Amino acid sequence: MTNNYPGFIAHIRKYVELSEQEVDILDSYVKPVDLKRREYLITEGEVCRCNYFVERGCLRMFFNNDKMVEQTIQFALETWWMSDYFSFARQSPSQYMIQAVEKSFVVAVDYSLQDKLFSEVPQMERYFRIMMQRALAASQLRVKLIYQLSKEEMYTQFVNSFPGFFQRVPQYMIASYLGLTPEYLSELRKRR
Amino acid sequence: MTNNYPGFIAHIRKYVELSEQEVDILDSYVKPVDLKRREYLITEGEVCRCNYFVERGCLRMFFNNDKMVEQTIQFALETWWMSDYFSFARQSPSQYMIQAVEKSFVVAVDYSLQDKLFSEVPQMERYFRIMMQRALAASQLRVKLIYQLSKEEMYTQFVNSFPGFFQRVPQYMIASYLGLTPEYLSELRKRR
Repeated sequence: MTNNYPGFIAHIRKYVELSEQEVDILDSYVKPVDLKRREYLITEGEVCRCNYFVERGCLRMFFNNDKMVEQTIQFALETWWMSDYFSFARQSPSQYMIQAVEKSFVVAVDYSLQDKLFSEVPQMERYFRIMMQRALAASQLRVKLIYQLSKEEMYTQFVNSFPGFFQRVPQYMIASYLGLTPEYLSELRKRR
Repeated sequence: MTNNYPGFIAHIRKYVELSEQEVDILDSYVKPVDLKRREYLITEGEVCRCNYFVERGCLRMFFNNDKMVEQTIQFALETWWMSDYFSFARQSPSQYMIQAVEKSFVVAVDYSLQDKLFSEVPQMERYFRIMMQRALAASQLRVKLIYQLSKEEMYTQFVNSFPGFFQRVPQYMIASYLGLTPEYLSELRKRR
């Protein structure tokens, strides 16, 4: 049994049972990836071949808008999965970049191996069904908040939901994620 | 074998194999629901007990904002699934209403029966894993478009993606979904 990514195995075992033997099989299907700060997993135009689990560190997904300004649309912290699911499912070019915000260590599940993994360890299909459903729930909530909250309320909600996050991530990325100018974000932080 | 919801069975068979016997089992786990125009499947504060497949008709999900104005955040047409996945997964009260926009016929999968269904027809777990992943891909794209497009571009994108939809759904619901005033939507429609 591997001890390279205890967070990954523990997270799966929160949702489904895995024998030691199944952990070994799983081990042969996933690829650990070390990432330097600001290193890319995919860039625009590449196919997003993997779904990535954050064992340590933080990823972000962004695109360059018409004004060639980086627009961050998603972050992933420890125990979160990240992929461009459109590109992943169709194995078509991605419109996004996925980048390590800080030094990170991720576990990658390759699209081309996924079905074979599911046939050998069927619980993994269940695990991913639950992960996708959870991500969808989070995404529905996010859309609701975008419609419901003012920019300032979005900021407060974000700070309260992810304490400690602000120290880890450059302010301009958070501003972009929240749809604020960096100047306005800085003003909101001072007010708190 | 049932012929009550051919769209439902055909949709599942696009993604996984189902024998006639498995269709019969599936049949015993799902509940067909006839809905009048404007009838509710859930209202705010209720637990969203089911995941709903639209066999015929159209559903929408909305909430009442601070000004008690209905904010539509999602539509579901034929072959789409709809649920409040947060409420569904936790069996906690929903913050949304799910309503039939027109006379509709849906197939409901109850949360309390889902795991038993998966153990009897394991392919259904796979089917739902794929459905959740597709919905997540659509949701990622939606968030990108919200950040990327102007209100007018959102409108054009929506019209091109779902031709015929405008004839079926009251304009104020579409305006609310697109984040436009009904007046501005009407202006945009005249311009086209």
